[in-house]
Amino acid sequence: MTSIEQAGEVVRWCRQLAKFSESRGETTRRFLTAPMRDVHTALAAWMSRVGMTVRVDAMGNIRGLYPPVVSSVPAADAPRLLIGSHLDTVPNAGAFDGILGVVMGVALVELLGDRRLSFAIEVVGFSDEEGVRFGTPFLGSLALVGDVDPSLLDLRDEQGRSLRTVIRDFGLEPGRLPDAKAPAGSMGYLEFHIEQGPVLENLNLPLAVVDVIAGQSRATATFTGRAGHAGTTPMKLRKDALAGAAAWMTEVERVATATSGLVATVGRLEVEPGAGNVIPGRATVWVDVRHPSDDTRKAAFERLKATATEIAGHRGLQMSWEPRLDQASVSMDQKIASMLDRAVEQAGFPAHRMTSGAGHDAMIVARRMPVGMMFLRCEKGISHHPGENVREDDVAAALEAGLKFLDEIGRAGRE
Amino acid sequence: MTSIEQAGEVVRWCRQLAKFSESRGETTRRFLTAPMRDVHTALAAWMSRVGMTVRVDAMGNIRGLYPPVVSSVPAADAPRLLIGSHLDTVPNAGAFDGILGVVMGVALVELLGDRRLSFAIEVVGFSDEEGVRFGTPFLGSLALVGDVDPSLLDLRDEQGRSLRTVIRDFGLEPGRLPDAKAPAGSMGYLEFHIEQGPVLENLNLPLAVVDVIAGQSRATATFTGRAGHAGTTPMKLRKDALAGAAAWMTEVERVATATSGLVATVGRLEVEPGAGNVIPGRATVWVDVRHPSDDTRKAAFERLKATATEIAGHRGLQMSWEPRLDQASVSMDQKIASMLDRAVEQAGFPAHRMTSGAGHDAMIVARRMPVGMMFLRCEKGISHHPGENVREDDVAAALEAGLKFLDEIGRAGRE
Repeated sequence: MTSIEQAGEVVRWCRQLAKFSESRGETTRRFLTAPMRDVHTALAAWMSRVGMTVRVDAMGNIRGLYPPVVSSVPAADAPRLLIGSHLDTVPNAGAFDGILGVVMGVALVELLGDRRLSFAIEVVGFSDEEGVRFGTPFLGSLALVGDVDPSLLDLRDEQGRSLRTVIRDFGLEPGRLPDAKAPAGSMGYLEFHIEQGPVLENLNLPLAVVDVIAGQSRATATFTGRAGHAGTTPMKLRKDALAGAAAWMTEVERVATATSGLVATVGRLEVEPGAGNVIPGRATVWVDVRHPSDDTRKAAFERLKATATEIAGHRGLQMSWEPRLDQASVSMDQKIASMLDRAVEQAGFPAHRMTSGAGHDAMIVARRMPVGMMFLRCEKGISHHPGENVREDDVAAALEAGLKFLDEIGRAGRE
Repeated sequence: MTSIEQAGEVVRWCRQLAKFSESRGETTRRFLTAPMRDVHTALAAWMSRVGMTVRVDAMGNIRGLYPPVVSSVPAADAPRLLIGSHLDTVPNAGAFDGILGVVMGVALVELLGDRRLSFAIEVVGFSDEEGVRFGTPFLGSLALVGDVDPSLLDLRDEQGRSLRTVIRDFGLEPGRLPDAKAPAGSMGYLEFHIEQGPVLENLNLPLAVVDVIAGQSRATATFTGRAGHAGTTPMKLRKDALAGAAAWMTEVERVATATSGLVATVGRLEVEPGAGNVIPGRATVWVDVRHPSDDTRKAAFERLKATATEIAGHRGLQMSWEPRLDQASVSMDQKIASMLDRAVEQAGFPAHRMTSGAGHDAMIVARRMPVGMMFLRCEKGISHHPGENVREDDVAAALEAGLKFLDEIGRAGRE
């Protein structure tokens, strides 16, 4: 089987698995719901067929282990490369976010034929990355790295069922969570993922190797002025909270555009009282700032805060700033990234590095082992939407590069 | 009784009538509700006591007629000055918007003692100006000018009761609406009203004579771009609808500030999808533009539309513009305004003219007779809010000026 034939299979698998959904006619698949069990069943059958030993760990992650060449070391203790991503989706999702990285793992093993490598390959499908069901993300990868805080088990979903209960009702045993931890011999973790952005399409490139997952800062800036009658209050006697917010939003965009690699977004804005004929007395602005360098991000964040204070001051408004997230950037392992670069080049494509602006399982797994990520170009940057799409030839390129990477990392292990 | 003593009475009357409300602890009094009957009853008693003949017309306007000096002309045909404003309120209103203009009329008649003038005075309390109950304003004044379109009687309130039914259930007869029309001999209409804005307080003046009620234009500008992931979409590849809207909002403010007498307000803004980590794909902006000159207003409105189109064009956004209101300005009668100026000066205060940025009953009454309005300073410009307040000495100033105006208009009638 060629990589291009297998790429067709990968896309078909993803589209087929997208039908396992909580709601008919769309793809919505949260942590340990019935359609996730269907995904487990389908993947387990495929994994077994290609020679993997399958289990579902206590957090509901599916794990398929492809053994190494026979050696004096027991398979469980052999060096092991993990390949994976997540099985869960946002509501009304596309067919590729997450699941592609799991399917790619099995497809690569299948492409090996029966060839065994000097290391084991474990394909992992994480049960939760999006965090939709329990309002907190990365439950699957947290179990893999052994960082499930016991209090998490008391979280409740919208139906009031605790995480502990949901795990038990799925037929799993929360007490076995320690067994979900990756073994000490794990060499690294590789995650294939759609880019979820427009950069590769814009550059006309199929693949990128991720350098770093950007850090994030979030805050709300609340401008408070004085509500007033839109007809009876002259412009110079106004304290218009929304006018202040608008002036600040143009600065947010200006600062972000002027700083290489920075993205800053106002995605949400609330205006009070919110009537067309009343001058707004309050405007609350949600800002999200990301950059690969934590220093640059923090400096930009502070500058935006200072600008908000300054604009409010000039206009006689109050400004209150509430930080809501401060998440450090996570660097990918540079040896793995270099091997991925070479693998991409050997597959016949230009090596290209980029920052991931979104969080991924690799971010959590990086706490315990070297990690690497490869992005696949996606159509128009659309993600978290039924319109999500990848090209088969890009998947073929990723499979080719994946095979080359397996060679690279095997060679590195022998040196 | 002195004007300052009577001013105390006026404020007490307003505060007392504010207790007649549909909801305890606040002032909410819509068209022909039970508390409006209580207001009729209280005002009718006072009107009768000061020598007026009282009726409630078929639209529920209370009308108190103070007869002129005995002459050969029957009282009903004598020249007549109308003084009034409205009895209804917005939800959770203050104690002065509307009702003050009615109470001022009765208080002025009371201040005449038993002195009769060469003309009759009819004090009118309109049953509806705010339009809260039937979603259309000015029902009271439309009846006075004979412009009640028969289809209005089919309007239904939130309980599904028609205007016709509500009038009947109040004990009135919709067929008698023609009798609500002001007689042909009406000399003019005078309305005292709180300014509902901060201008007089800012100028440290108690009174202003209204020149013109500003015209209004309203529209929505909808900017459509492309929603996207806040982390994965570089600034230069974005089509951020809200960023475009923010740039336009700063222009709205700039244009309004640069144009004398213009006010332009964005009071409402809706962002889609409205999540903090998603670049907005759509932003809908409500804009309200007012100016005493219709030409200036229309030119500014067109300019704002052109600016929105231009900003959208530069950013690769779509912009759709939906006009929602185009209401012409209404000039006050210039003879009455001049008489009011002189009256204010004779009362010992500087004459000051201003534009009304809000609509008033005088706007409708102007269709049939000369109208004039006098604004009273109000605290911090607060209106449509329980915090609404007027100073007793300002009410005294208005009463003094009102008495002088009665002299002026009587003198004018004799010339």
